[in-house]
Amino acid sequence: MTETLAAEREQAVTDEVVASFDGAGPRLREVLQSLVRHLHGFAREVRLSEREWEAAIAFLTRAGHLTDDRRQEFILLSDVLGLSMLTVAINEPQTPGATEATVFGPFFHDEAPEIPLGGDIARGAAGTPCYVSGQVRDTDGKPIADARIDVWEADEDGFYDVQYADNRSAGRAWLRTGPDGEYRFWSVLPAPYPIPHDGPVGDLLAAAGRGPMRPAHLHFMVTAPGYRRLITHIFLAGDPHLGDDAVFGVKESLVVEAVRHESGPAPDGTAPEGGWAGIEFDLVLVQH
Amino acid sequence: MTETLAAEREQAVTDEVVASFDGAGPRLREVLQSLVRHLHGFAREVRLSEREWEAAIAFLTRAGHLTDDRRQEFILLSDVLGLSMLTVAINEPQTPGATEATVFGPFFHDEAPEIPLGGDIARGAAGTPCYVSGQVRDTDGKPIADARIDVWEADEDGFYDVQYADNRSAGRAWLRTGPDGEYRFWSVLPAPYPIPHDGPVGDLLAAAGRGPMRPAHLHFMVTAPGYRRLITHIFLAGDPHLGDDAVFGVKESLVVEAVRHESGPAPDGTAPEGGWAGIEFDLVLVQH
Ligand SMILES: [Fe+2]
Ligand SMILES: [Fe+2]
Repeated sequence: MTETLAAEREQAVTDEVVASFDGAGPRLREVLQSLVRHLHGFAREVRLSEREWEAAIAFLTRAGHLTDDRRQEFILLSDVLGLSMLTVAINEPQTPGATEATVFGPFFHDEAPEIPLGGDIARGAAGTPCYVSGQVRDTDGKPIADARIDVWEADEDGFYDVQYADNRSAGRAWLRTGPDGEYRFWSVLPAPYPIPHDGPVGDLLAAAGRGPMRPAHLHFMVTAPGYRRLITHIFLAGDPHLGDDAVFGVKESLVVEAVRHESGPAPDGTAPEGGWAGIEFDLVLVQH
Repeated sequence: MTETLAAEREQAVTDEVVASFDGAGPRLREVLQSLVRHLHGFAREVRLSEREWEAAIAFLTRAGHLTDDRRQEFILLSDVLGLSMLTVAINEPQTPGATEATVFGPFFHDEAPEIPLGGDIARGAAGTPCYVSGQVRDTDGKPIADARIDVWEADEDGFYDVQYADNRSAGRAWLRTGPDGEYRFWSVLPAPYPIPHDGPVGDLLAAAGRGPMRPAHLHFMVTAPGYRRLITHIFLAGDPHLGDDAVFGVKESLVVEAVRHESGPAPDGTAPEGGWAGIEFDLVLVQH
């Protein structure tokens, strides 16, 4: 059989599958027919072998068995393939002045407690005390009172609480902004960490010669009625992994200076033994 | 931001992810960079929303949790998206006269027992007795003695043994060809069946208005030293689902006539009460 005939035979498979979705509703049809075309285009381009197909099935199976309430291997996969960041880029409003978004990641947990303005999100997570403050406002400069800020972070060893053996909750909480949109909380200075790499995604990175590290960051999710939900991080200036984030999440506008104070009082008057760090960062939301 | 800038920003994400695989070995690099380009191309083309991304993560998570020794949701997914048949098409040797291949499917189980030539693969599976016979040979017409033939099938209710509640093995076995490449065995006449559709793949088919049915078939896997492994089915002529196989596996050359005999003896001299059906089908392998 000539190459042309082989190409026609392969195209016929794709055409048949695409046509099988002709009866779906408009959006589902658009998504599935595009998915089939691109998935088939990939398999044809690389001449996917049967062993490689089997390896892909085994990879997904292993990822599925590893995924539970505390581990999300499919999000990690999407993250290391850049699909998460691309989805952020596709959906992010292009309003000048708005805080840029980045990946959600696999470590959010919706059972974090509320803390008062000025409270402590570390809740026992180890690390240098870090005072974070700023204002939530909109792109017109209007302060947003009573916005909800969810914050989550890894401890100084690079672990989120969901990775602790003892199931305790730490390094995460939520608070509300004050009347002038202001927020402030204690946390610990975040550390660079490897994404969980003892599963198939870690094996993929290792096989490809890629590292699993993420630069130090603090996760934010900010919501307020009438505004688009903002999911972002702040990264620490000077981190050695700003240039090779395993999940491609770094944006220049999100890199901030953490100012170290060896001693003396923080803005709230407390003076942690051994010093503290201070971060200021404003969060600018986009109107719906 | 103009559309051009948005497109550039999205392309920059793709370029960064593609470049992250520059250090992988040649084949892994080729596969992963192509995968990233096509996956990103899909997301950009459909303007994938964050909710759709979340739905995809939830779909894969559910598929993973449903998958075990007896259920393989990821193979079903590959099957209904035509990736399995496309992989067959890409890899199938184009040797004239060779038996065509089709999908492997999710129901193979490697712990089936050996039966003697002329034995019964049904092993208790319910249905009309069906005598299947033919010859295994190569594309030069040379008989292949001692080839291994694995056969598996659904019973008359459309269920494979792995779908039975009681864990028993039935409707599957393997045998070896005789000195002249001949084979013969008893089975039951296969029935059309729905692929398992109580999971995310079934929900996908339902949402897209596609049916879950496969036309009646008998699975074969034929192996012999020096020959390429053949994975195929035989389908029954007249089946109402030949035109809309949920997994796109039908090929004309694999459709055979099952000849019904209301009474009288089969070629091996036995005369099952209530009659029997007969199928003849030769299996032609390709030399390595
Ligand atoms: Fe993180
Ligand atoms: Fe089957």
